[in-house]
Amino acid sequence: MPDPWPTAITNIKPNSVRVRGYDIAELMGRCSFGQMVYLLLLGEPPDAPTGRLMEAILVSSVDHGATPPSALAARTVASTGASLSASVAAGVMSINRHHGGAIEACAHTLGEVVEKARFGKTLDEASDDVIGGYKKRGERIAGFGHRVHTADPRTRRLFELAAEAGVGNTPDTEPSHVDAARALERAFARAGKPLPINVDGAIGAILADLGFDHATMNGIFMIARAPGLVAHVVEEQHRMKPMRKIDPASHTYDGPADRTAPNQE
Amino acid sequence: MPDPWPTAITNIKPNSVRVRGYDIAELMGRCSFGQMVYLLLLGEPPDAPTGRLMEAILVSSVDHGATPPSALAARTVASTGASLSASVAAGVMSINRHHGGAIEACAHTLGEVVEKARFGKTLDEASDDVIGGYKKRGERIAGFGHRVHTADPRTRRLFELAAEAGVGNTPDTEPSHVDAARALERAFARAGKPLPINVDGAIGAILADLGFDHATMNGIFMIARAPGLVAHVVEEQHRMKPMRKIDPASHTYDGPADRTAPNQE
Amino acid sequence: MPDPWPTAITNIKPNSVRVRGYDIAELMGRCSFGQMVYLLLLGEPPDAPTGRLMEAILVSSVDHGATPPSALAARTVASTGASLSASVAAGVMSINRHHGGAIEACAHTLGEVVEKARFGKTLDEASDDVIGGYKKRGERIAGFGHRVHTADPRTRRLFELAAEAGVGNTPDTEPSHVDAARALERAFARAGKPLPINVDGAIGAILADLGFDHATMNGIFMIARAPGLVAHVVEEQHRMKPMRKIDPASHTYDGPADRTAPNQE
Amino acid sequence: MPDPWPTAITNIKPNSVRVRGYDIAELMGRCSFGQMVYLLLLGEPPDAPTGRLMEAILVSSVDHGATPPSALAARTVASTGASLSASVAAGVMSINRHHGGAIEACAHTLGEVVEKARFGKTLDEASDDVIGGYKKRGERIAGFGHRVHTADPRTRRLFELAAEAGVGNTPDTEPSHVDAARALERAFARAGKPLPINVDGAIGAILADLGFDHATMNGIFMIARAPGLVAHVVEEQHRMKPMRKIDPASHTYDGPADRTAPNQE
Repeated sequence: MPDPWPTAITNIKPNSVRVRGYDIAELMGRCSFGQMVYLLLLGEPPDAPTGRLMEAILVSSVDHGATPPSALAARTVASTGASLSASVAAGVMSINRHHGGAIEACAHTLGEVVEKARFGKTLDEASDDVIGGYKKRGERIAGFGHRVHTADPRTRRLFELAAEAGVGNTPDTEPSHVDAARALERAFARAGKPLPINVDGAIGAILADLGFDHATMNGIFMIARAPGLVAHVVEEQHRMKPMRKIDPASHTYDGPADRTAPNQE
Repeated sequence: MPDPWPTAITNIKPNSVRVRGYDIAELMGRCSFGQMVYLLLLGEPPDAPTGRLMEAILVSSVDHGATPPSALAARTVASTGASLSASVAAGVMSINRHHGGAIEACAHTLGEVVEKARFGKTLDEASDDVIGGYKKRGERIAGFGHRVHTADPRTRRLFELAAEAGVGNTPDTEPSHVDAARALERAFARAGKPLPINVDGAIGAILADLGFDHATMNGIFMIARAPGLVAHVVEEQHRMKPMRKIDPASHTYDGPADRTAPNQE
Repeated sequence: MPDPWPTAITNIKPNSVRVRGYDIAELMGRCSFGQMVYLLLLGEPPDAPTGRLMEAILVSSVDHGATPPSALAARTVASTGASLSASVAAGVMSINRHHGGAIEACAHTLGEVVEKARFGKTLDEASDDVIGGYKKRGERIAGFGHRVHTADPRTRRLFELAAEAGVGNTPDTEPSHVDAARALERAFARAGKPLPINVDGAIGAILADLGFDHATMNGIFMIARAPGLVAHVVEEQHRMKPMRKIDPASHTYDGPADRTAPNQE
Repeated sequence: MPDPWPTAITNIKPNSVRVRGYDIAELMGRCSFGQMVYLLLLGEPPDAPTGRLMEAILVSSVDHGATPPSALAARTVASTGASLSASVAAGVMSINRHHGGAIEACAHTLGEVVEKARFGKTLDEASDDVIGGYKKRGERIAGFGHRVHTADPRTRRLFELAAEAGVGNTPDTEPSHVDAARALERAFARAGKPLPINVDGAIGAILADLGFDHATMNGIFMIARAPGLVAHVVEEQHRMKPMRKIDPASHTYDGPADRTAPNQE
């Protein structure tokens, strides 16, 4: 018989479920879901402001209406009579390079800037270099600019919360991905193409500074978007006729009017 | 051209993403992910203790080690070289009647007890009736007893947090699903089969009292389990050889030793 | 160690792959794919005309253009940069009650007619009864009539090939599902609603007469449609831009002009 | 309104379904499913021997028992109570680089040999070169050798049928992928590592000579394996208990005993 195969995630014993060594029952009521995501994927619990930052990242990406392909794939599958889980799975399967992938791609580009800045260049010089390289190879830099949102308030908010958590605040030590994002914005402006970092880019910068693997970042987007996908599938099942032709360009919002968030927590 | 189709979930305008009327940027840093899930699926924001309860529900189900079929399906697909999203999707597709479905099934049974108790019977009489009915039809009542956990501390903790949020505390008005769960436990004991409610049953009772649709409950389990699935797929991709034979019965935990949760937040 | 679990499908030994007892290498070049599908799912090989009928059933359903939800789901997932297999899987996941499900649903209804005709009623009386029952319960009978095709030549061709294979030709013995389909057409006409059986209904009738389980029929549609899904995904990947908005109502065919099939084989 | 988007696969008009210009109703009974797959993916109908070859390719890969990850993923998902389509989709999602991918990978390697042989080298010299290159880069050549089958009769049969169809018979013109496969076998033997081409490699060689895109080849494997996946899911649903632990290493075949294929068609 072969050796048992190893896993370092969760230890199950009678009346005990321990994630990365911590008893889930003990974490319940004390650890937020964002903290749990951090613990599960990085192996250690975050401090409180970092936990709050993780929550904000998840909240920022929870839904983006009816047009993303993940929502459309989930609704299309749901309209055939599929189960909730199969429909949500079709949405998850749509989170790839072109949808959600800007987080990882931007983190990669920022990593290139950081790397160059580690070896003697300023962040501004490094940014000009990196932009030049992409231009020469005919490649696009992901995470900057947006079809719909030119000044996305989610981005500003993320950087505020990142600053509160001490993420990206590294003036005199080694350059952060958040610093590199700012430097790239300046470089785009210098090149006459003012492209502000977008919400995906901001998340990529922050997750990279937190120490997440590039390959895991798309997973955080999946976790964040799961509630949105469930909501779209439930709405499709309850409100729409089966087998309707779902035109992605023609829909209207008829939910609650604009209202102000309660200042709780 | 046909009328635009309606959606009441999220309203996208330039530089504005509003979920159920609330600006996401405004919610970030103030609203936990659990509160967001509640808002997204029920349409209104929860109060703070209910938000904390939602967080605890999500945290309680975030992972259950390597044996659940969702983890095994995700790992099996990952072992073929599939993308992270396809692998996680295979895990989501495994959340159905027999896996995660006890939440919904138990909520349904508790609803039967509550219904009978609304019409003149005590909860104890209603519970005996309902157990008798299942027995006669040769059906199992889901959400009570567990293969591995006989006294699951997650269950106790959930009921504590539910009590703090005022969920299920309805002595003199109409019976709650949480009350019905306790009554069913007593009825099982009277029948000589002491089956404590398990974590799925507790979640079903609480979600029903919070007003969630039975059909949505499995979706909350998918949301909760998404981080666990991402963690399993990432571990499989980084640590294991492709195309290995994954024996569900033979694995070993080699992660951090037992440790105590930091008392933060 | 638990007992090994049993499977009766395929026996793998060194240099030998036997499906239901037959050596695949021996079948290659002699057994058509349609015969193989029959052998795999029913356990015994069909005779030659039945094999030809199976091929025709698979060929009839191989594709239906860009509007079915399976093609749209597959293309939507593909447009995000998903792999071929994940995209095709999203298409397969769309084959459910409302898409492809008419085959199974019609077989079920025809089974009701056959059952009644076994116990003393004529097929015409049984058909009137069954139609009356559906009407009373407010349910639709699947497999009759079509949004687009009012006289589908595929249906006529299927019944011709079924007759050649001796399927449904049972005048003096027990009623066949094909007979029941004809009787239901007459009953619809008598009721003033001339609804011809459609291609799904014809397939359901024939598969039922061949002895296929209702639960397997949707699987035959998945097998038949797999090449169409592969073709749509490959076309999407090669010809279209990523993340395009796919309007199901607005597309145009620009492939080869109408031409006549070569009379080979 | 944007222009309609184009598709060159299937043209749907009332009472007419035309694939690549051919009326499906006309093809039914005359065109095998293998011919249809060729027509759908390459755009033109094959001649009769090539159609027979396509059938043999599909038949050769229809199932490989209970151990491939596609069968295990499909069964694992099915065991949770998933629908047939979701379970089969999980199997399809498992067809990737490490499972089924040897077809495409081998075709790619054979293409390298053919390319070198086009520019002055003999196939034997080109094969030595290519093997040397893989060795230097520390990469494995796919499609040669097999864990279980050392002399797979399916491989021999495929090459026989390919020869009958005139595929790979190009002694004095330009080198074929089939020729390159033979040359690679000789080169492996010369290098003291006698690795015969396996069934995946043979399919890759033949599909490349038929003109299929590398990216489409995995799709042909999905089409071929779909019936096997349906059979495994149906067996799991009918014969096994839900939520069983599926050990891939411990199963036993209890189907029909070895028997000889009928010599029909």
